[in-house]
Amino acid sequence: VGDERKISALLGGRRLEVVHASEVVGMDESPVAAARGKRDSSMRRCLELVRQGGADAVVSAGNSGALMAGAVLTLGRLPGVERPPIASIYPTLAGPGVLLDMGANVDCRASHLVQFALLGEAFARALLGKARPRVALLANGTELTKGTEATREAHALLSSLPLDYRGYLEGRDLFRGLADVIVCDGFVGNAVLKSMEGAAEAFLALMRAEVARTLLGRLAARLLRPSLQRLRARLDYAEYGGAPLLGVRGVTVVCHGASTPRAVENAVRLAARLVAQGLPRALEAELARAAAVAPRPGNETAAS
Amino acid sequence: VGDERKISALLGGRRLEVVHASEVVGMDESPVAAARGKRDSSMRRCLELVRQGGADAVVSAGNSGALMAGAVLTLGRLPGVERPPIASIYPTLAGPGVLLDMGANVDCRASHLVQFALLGEAFARALLGKARPRVALLANGTELTKGTEATREAHALLSSLPLDYRGYLEGRDLFRGLADVIVCDGFVGNAVLKSMEGAAEAFLALMRAEVARTLLGRLAARLLRPSLQRLRARLDYAEYGGAPLLGVRGVTVVCHGASTPRAVENAVRLAARLVAQGLPRALEAELARAAAVAPRPGNETAAS
Repeated sequence: VGDERKISALLGGRRLEVVHASEVVGMDESPVAAARGKRDSSMRRCLELVRQGGADAVVSAGNSGALMAGAVLTLGRLPGVERPPIASIYPTLAGPGVLLDMGANVDCRASHLVQFALLGEAFARALLGKARPRVALLANGTELTKGTEATREAHALLSSLPLDYRGYLEGRDLFRGLADVIVCDGFVGNAVLKSMEGAAEAFLALMRAEVARTLLGRLAARLLRPSLQRLRARLDYAEYGGAPLLGVRGVTVVCHGASTPRAVENAVRLAARLVAQGLPRALEAELARAAAVAPRPGNETAAS
Repeated sequence: VGDERKISALLGGRRLEVVHASEVVGMDESPVAAARGKRDSSMRRCLELVRQGGADAVVSAGNSGALMAGAVLTLGRLPGVERPPIASIYPTLAGPGVLLDMGANVDCRASHLVQFALLGEAFARALLGKARPRVALLANGTELTKGTEATREAHALLSSLPLDYRGYLEGRDLFRGLADVIVCDGFVGNAVLKSMEGAAEAFLALMRAEVARTLLGRLAARLLRPSLQRLRARLDYAEYGGAPLLGVRGVTVVCHGASTPRAVENAVRLAARLVAQGLPRALEAELARAAAVAPRPGNETAAS
């Protein structure tokens, strides 16, 4: 979906259906204004296609805030979801893990964190094929005296739900794979994921600089190249290409604005897989299951 | 300060003055209860010594919450400081940086973040010898539409203060050294620092495992050993040994509970240096300077 002439020129002879859209949402535009105002943007057209059944999923590396706002506006939220989170699939020593929210949901209440946990659990079950994914809250320590007001209240609510809930984990545990689903607000999730990426990049840059200082180092680096390539593949954030927006009526995958072609390809694969697994229905069933055994956390918290 | 018999036995012939304390604060004790209740704990005795001028600084690898609560209770806070933060000195590609709060101050208001910025700036000036340390707020993106309610309000307040204030930085920028002082609440600071440490540890472990798989890899690793040792020294969190608690009337350095002997030695050196530089007075002067040009942020925010 987009500018038909530009896209057709890039497609060469490949046979793909192109849906024309005359407008574009800029990367710096206000998300809500763009989602509401630009009715013929590629993003909005694509979301409309999904809503009407003309497409099964949206994949976009555009303005992620506008994609989130547009998805809520066009596709609508699942019952019981106040704020759809973005779930990041990140590498751990024990295989891929899910961290959410990595999106724009800052200043979250306990009810939002509980919804993230339920959505993340159902998503991890579909993605990782685990019958009972382990769920944990990210906090500033593992003792229950730690955490914010919101995490302490979310802890109490999660303890009463039918989840394999493991309590608090701290930043040091993220890479260890001690849980399959790590829950936090979007401010913390963004800060933590980006600082881990930054640390890994800095580490590689420092190592390259150290190694280049001596002849022996350069020789050793050449010998190590296959090992380092395997290591990089294990830690590659592009392996899944994108991060799904959970809790809307349709599959929506958000890609980084600076995505490589391989990342976009993998994001399309991820979207296809989530469609085949009927993700939105799985998420809806999970929310209904939780609501059946406990008062709906959203309502309970709003009333307290 | 502590159990005289146990300490004397460990000192061998070294001539150090030992002050006896009959009680010990356990690592799992409630900080405030321990700080209030155990009046003959080594921690409390040591803080009393500083208050009365019998010692110049406290260095402890004990229960950090109890040390913070005890320092506030015994030494008192500097004027204009609502919640003393712990300042972490962490490695960046451009040399050491300061991140605060890494302590127990969660659920922070804008006025707290502004105080952290002022204290961190004065501390960075003393520690790093920079005339005008660059100060930034950690957020979930660099655009000013990002951040929480608290960071957006803190941004407005900081923009009017006589600081080299650079606005928002994101997690990816932490290792790049784009600012000398990074300000966030204690929940975020803890999560970010611990996840970066965890990422670095995991990276080293994965590299060791990859390298050990082949004979050539093992050979290369041996050749690289000096480079890796230099790299580890550059990234070593034990270089400063401890993290000072800023905003109390006296020098207090908090060490990790699992500190190595070298980390404790370096923490004592750091404390001695901060005493020689008159840190508490420098912090007090900074707060007074800020209060003179702008309404005191603590009061302004409390009223809003």
